[in-house]
Amino acid sequence: MIDRSNRLSFASDYLEGAHPAVLRRLQETNLLQTAGYGLDEFSEAAREKIRAACHAPEADVFFLAGGTQTNAVMIKAMLRPWQGVMAAETGHISCHEAGAIEADGHKVFTLPQENGKLSADAVKACIDAYRQDENRDHMVAPGLVYLSFPTEYGTLYSRSELEAISAVCRASGIPLYLDGARLAYALACPENDVTLPDIARLCDAFYIGGTKCGALFGEAAVIPRHDAVPHLFTLIKQHGALLAKGRITGVQFDTLFTDGLYDEIGHTAVSAADRIRAALTAKGIELCFGSPTNQIFLLLTRAEAARLQEKVALSFWENPDENHTILRLATSWATTDAQVERLLEIL
Amino acid sequence: MIDRSNRLSFASDYLEGAHPAVLRRLQETNLLQTAGYGLDEFSEAAREKIRAACHAPEADVFFLAGGTQTNAVMIKAMLRPWQGVMAAETGHISCHEAGAIEADGHKVFTLPQENGKLSADAVKACIDAYRQDENRDHMVAPGLVYLSFPTEYGTLYSRSELEAISAVCRASGIPLYLDGARLAYALACPENDVTLPDIARLCDAFYIGGTKCGALFGEAAVIPRHDAVPHLFTLIKQHGALLAKGRITGVQFDTLFTDGLYDEIGHTAVSAADRIRAALTAKGIELCFGSPTNQIFLLLTRAEAARLQEKVALSFWENPDENHTILRLATSWATTDAQVERLLEIL
Amino acid sequence: MIDRSNRLSFASDYLEGAHPAVLRRLQETNLLQTAGYGLDEFSEAAREKIRAACHAPEADVFFLAGGTQTNAVMIKAMLRPWQGVMAAETGHISCHEAGAIEADGHKVFTLPQENGKLSADAVKACIDAYRQDENRDHMVAPGLVYLSFPTEYGTLYSRSELEAISAVCRASGIPLYLDGARLAYALACPENDVTLPDIARLCDAFYIGGTKCGALFGEAAVIPRHDAVPHLFTLIKQHGALLAKGRITGVQFDTLFTDGLYDEIGHTAVSAADRIRAALTAKGIELCFGSPTNQIFLLLTRAEAARLQEKVALSFWENPDENHTILRLATSWATTDAQVERLLEIL
Amino acid sequence: MIDRSNRLSFASDYLEGAHPAVLRRLQETNLLQTAGYGLDEFSEAAREKIRAACHAPEADVFFLAGGTQTNAVMIKAMLRPWQGVMAAETGHISCHEAGAIEADGHKVFTLPQENGKLSADAVKACIDAYRQDENRDHMVAPGLVYLSFPTEYGTLYSRSELEAISAVCRASGIPLYLDGARLAYALACPENDVTLPDIARLCDAFYIGGTKCGALFGEAAVIPRHDAVPHLFTLIKQHGALLAKGRITGVQFDTLFTDGLYDEIGHTAVSAADRIRAALTAKGIELCFGSPTNQIFLLLTRAEAARLQEKVALSFWENPDENHTILRLATSWATTDAQVERLLEIL
Repeated sequence: MIDRSNRLSFASDYLEGAHPAVLRRLQETNLLQTAGYGLDEFSEAAREKIRAACHAPEADVFFLAGGTQTNAVMIKAMLRPWQGVMAAETGHISCHEAGAIEADGHKVFTLPQENGKLSADAVKACIDAYRQDENRDHMVAPGLVYLSFPTEYGTLYSRSELEAISAVCRASGIPLYLDGARLAYALACPENDVTLPDIARLCDAFYIGGTKCGALFGEAAVIPRHDAVPHLFTLIKQHGALLAKGRITGVQFDTLFTDGLYDEIGHTAVSAADRIRAALTAKGIELCFGSPTNQIFLLLTRAEAARLQEKVALSFWENPDENHTILRLATSWATTDAQVERLLEIL
Repeated sequence: MIDRSNRLSFASDYLEGAHPAVLRRLQETNLLQTAGYGLDEFSEAAREKIRAACHAPEADVFFLAGGTQTNAVMIKAMLRPWQGVMAAETGHISCHEAGAIEADGHKVFTLPQENGKLSADAVKACIDAYRQDENRDHMVAPGLVYLSFPTEYGTLYSRSELEAISAVCRASGIPLYLDGARLAYALACPENDVTLPDIARLCDAFYIGGTKCGALFGEAAVIPRHDAVPHLFTLIKQHGALLAKGRITGVQFDTLFTDGLYDEIGHTAVSAADRIRAALTAKGIELCFGSPTNQIFLLLTRAEAARLQEKVALSFWENPDENHTILRLATSWATTDAQVERLLEIL
Repeated sequence: MIDRSNRLSFASDYLEGAHPAVLRRLQETNLLQTAGYGLDEFSEAAREKIRAACHAPEADVFFLAGGTQTNAVMIKAMLRPWQGVMAAETGHISCHEAGAIEADGHKVFTLPQENGKLSADAVKACIDAYRQDENRDHMVAPGLVYLSFPTEYGTLYSRSELEAISAVCRASGIPLYLDGARLAYALACPENDVTLPDIARLCDAFYIGGTKCGALFGEAAVIPRHDAVPHLFTLIKQHGALLAKGRITGVQFDTLFTDGLYDEIGHTAVSAADRIRAALTAKGIELCFGSPTNQIFLLLTRAEAARLQEKVALSFWENPDENHTILRLATSWATTDAQVERLLEIL
Repeated sequence: MIDRSNRLSFASDYLEGAHPAVLRRLQETNLLQTAGYGLDEFSEAAREKIRAACHAPEADVFFLAGGTQTNAVMIKAMLRPWQGVMAAETGHISCHEAGAIEADGHKVFTLPQENGKLSADAVKACIDAYRQDENRDHMVAPGLVYLSFPTEYGTLYSRSELEAISAVCRASGIPLYLDGARLAYALACPENDVTLPDIARLCDAFYIGGTKCGALFGEAAVIPRHDAVPHLFTLIKQHGALLAKGRITGVQFDTLFTDGLYDEIGHTAVSAADRIRAALTAKGIELCFGSPTNQIFLLLTRAEAARLQEKVALSFWENPDENHTILRLATSWATTDAQVERLLEIL
């Protein structure tokens, strides 16, 4: 029943279970009795720690099971029926969530991107085009901006880029939502200059990823201004995203936000990725998209790709032309020095 | 952070985390690397054990995070846009899932019930009324039957009752779906004569509850006939119900269906409930609805109810009249002999 | 191609085309060129006349093609995703609109009724039950009241009944919506004491029926307070309910609200119905529900019903028991004295 | 109330009411009594004539009020929840129907186009990309092709182009749907080689436009193979698209398909457009997109555009650059020789 293949794997950042500290805490608290639906003390403690980490003492915080679910609930909650959400054409909601946004009745405006990133100009252009169109009353209104941070290509917005997008949004009265599925791997990145308080200041809602950042599963949706998204508890329930044993996510996020564990998780993954990046670059392998986070995209000939995958499991990303392949390599909180060493030897 | 109140609680069957064996297995397998999205070996092993337990070797089995979500996805998958689902007026989908079925576009036909149970006659009457109505093309068509087993009142269908409902469904070409959120507590009940193979034989889809029956969270949706519900993987993803680390539910259900743990969990809860029921009856306290499973409904005067709740936490259920209150008492896999003894002393 | 049967028909109030004055005006204006989508002068003139008739100078007025469509668009526009609409269990949206409300994501709370009418008490009870329920955050919130006037049984709310319902709504912050598919036949009724200005004063939105009251088709949705329902133009378009040639409904409603035609249409139908009611009562035929408007419900034995239907086409309504049948007889703007005379002879 | 401006207008093809023959027939049949909901003899006669014109004796034919509504209902009826519809990025459903398709839960795949037309290659590429994607189970499946004929740019598919697209669809098991809002103006076009029987042979569903082709309003949805789209009557009702007085559309389409009126309407518009095109070309004005139908797109400098619009009303289409404007000129069944002469003088 257990995968006994010895093949090294960097195929994704959700290959293992939870960070041992998280699992240990679940174990310790397992037989304590608590209220359900997130009304327990662990969830409340986790909320307080997240509010503190975000410098957002009034924030509403909800715990959900996964990223697609969190995106769907939050976007539905923040849009009205005549509105749609703007996202990069490579955004997760645009292509890899099986039409969850449309299933809830909303159009995704797919905007041009560079290395997975939207620009303030592209957002402004979309809003302006709508507002200047004589036929706009026959069209879906842009009603929300969706960003991922890091992006699907592992890239980061700088603080000034995020401020520019936020400024466009606020000038237009359009909220900004940030998908932080891999947020730990952004925050821990040496070249990153965006902090959790920056995100809480610049966004109207965002989520702090747990599933890919040390939890068994779970995401923490944060709305910095209390009640800015009304009736969210009921919408979460309606979407089937309310856990009966909310304590399970509560305990996990409480642990992730105790003693700097969320930071540590990020640093483990990013420093492993940095060592691997250095080795790949030294070998002359071209890295795509400029990701500084825990995902690395290798441009290889098909033959090189096939040879490499015999020895280490990576993810197929795309074929940019007939002769080349882009593979994705991901580190995580679970990546060990030994694994990195083995990989460097293979390389 | 920990609930240090000494008050005994029988308020629900999701007060604790997971059965220790489940948590232990999560611990043991934690650092093994597996594929995501339920394609891992643990999930596959769990599927095989569930197929075996159901005598349904061709069954499709999917793991989802919670009950409301599972109901919503399965009902959406089994209905066409012109159809609605029949349920008891007390059914969970009728009143306590925040309109999840309607949010997906479908009407819930609320049928009369007795102690939470539908009858084959009530189902047939609803279908006949539609089919004989001259204006039926202007109306929603009954397209699915939803049952809960045990019901929201803890009651059970007998095998012959379930066969009668299934016969009506099949004669009408309408599928039957069973919500088994507390299934372990039905199967373990001495007076129950319905087995998992019976359910797989009589229903077109059902789910085996994990959240309330020993798992941290998670439900196993079973479709006895392979591919009877097409494209379900994508619908699960679209609904945000696909776990990236599907292994987490796989490991849990694999454990629950190893060495009779799911049965044992049921017996622990039901035998505790039986001892409590006997004591309550001996005390002359009226029990409502006739539940033989892990839920007990006590009819008390308001004063009695207040006094009892000072010493033991129960759930408020409803006020049948101005002087009385019905409280719900629930046991679970986690109920200990010591807790039962303490309760009996209080009584 | 033309129905040459000589059988007299009172089967419904939409057997003919349009009132001749309406058709004449369509003819006269046919080749004038106008803007589309209701931005034309005829639509604007009709809006002004409706505002005047309602004593609601700031009202928003939109023209839609039919009643089910108007109900669906208005109810969707007035609810948020966590809310549902309260209606009589016999309300048109509850049973005869093919699940249009649920298809848009909302639950219909079916409230008890008497002769098709809701009471202020029943509305208050539904709202109170929700607001007092400890689990209300897991439930759909009542968010709108739907009334039909006249009801599906042809009955009328008195002004004081409507005021009582409106008072409950306003005290609860819940808007009131009135379906006036047959409004002309209420307003013209001698026993009616509710005026268009009353409706505009007491409701947050309503529609003035055209399809059954003299137009080829079309309904006028009225929102007494300007912009109380935002972005309605776009929602109408999104629902496919925006006519390219909005002038067609504009011309029709302009005509209906010129020189008292809408009143005249109502009086023609109601006075014919009154003559028929008197004759039926004189014959000892029992009339059901107490409808004083253009619909009459006859309680007959099955044999009597069959004999009557040989000579005059009526609508089957329901079978109250094994021996009896209720038939519906409807008059309209098109009912002639000759038709009434022929019917009285048959009787 | 009547537009008394003398300014000539070619702003759209829905400036007037109905073709006089249509209105006359409504007049003649106005007081005949018929059944509702399209079950009348006029609707049935119209269906028979449409079946004959399409060489599709088994076709299902439904009459709806407008184009956005027809598209929404048909696309919803032909897709399953995990599927989306492919359309040109300029397709009416992609941008000018206020998100109607997404509001019903479906993604619109916007494909590249040339002069408003999709190619068989683009359709095949979209289907292949999906089917070859390893992650396709996480993605929306292409489930329908939407074409407009003529396109939004007035252009036409040749028979061989339509056959190629249809062949791709059939090889993939994906139905083809054609939006014929302006179908009369395609069929009457000298360079067109596609007939109604071709459309019925190559498409799985389509609609014959009435609103822009001589009717007051109304479109005829045609499903060549009986019952290929099940329960459509109920879906039409659910969408609020079922007219109570279905006769109104029945009479109109019966008239349009009697004595070649639909053809005549097309020829009137196209021959007027051809004369105007010739004059514009002679004047050296550049025409865009190559439309041979009733719509003409003029590329003008902004100064030229402003001067022209003082004398004749045209529609603003778009600004291709800072100095130029594209205006749209449309003829219709109502365009007279005198209007064309006046326009030619102005030019």
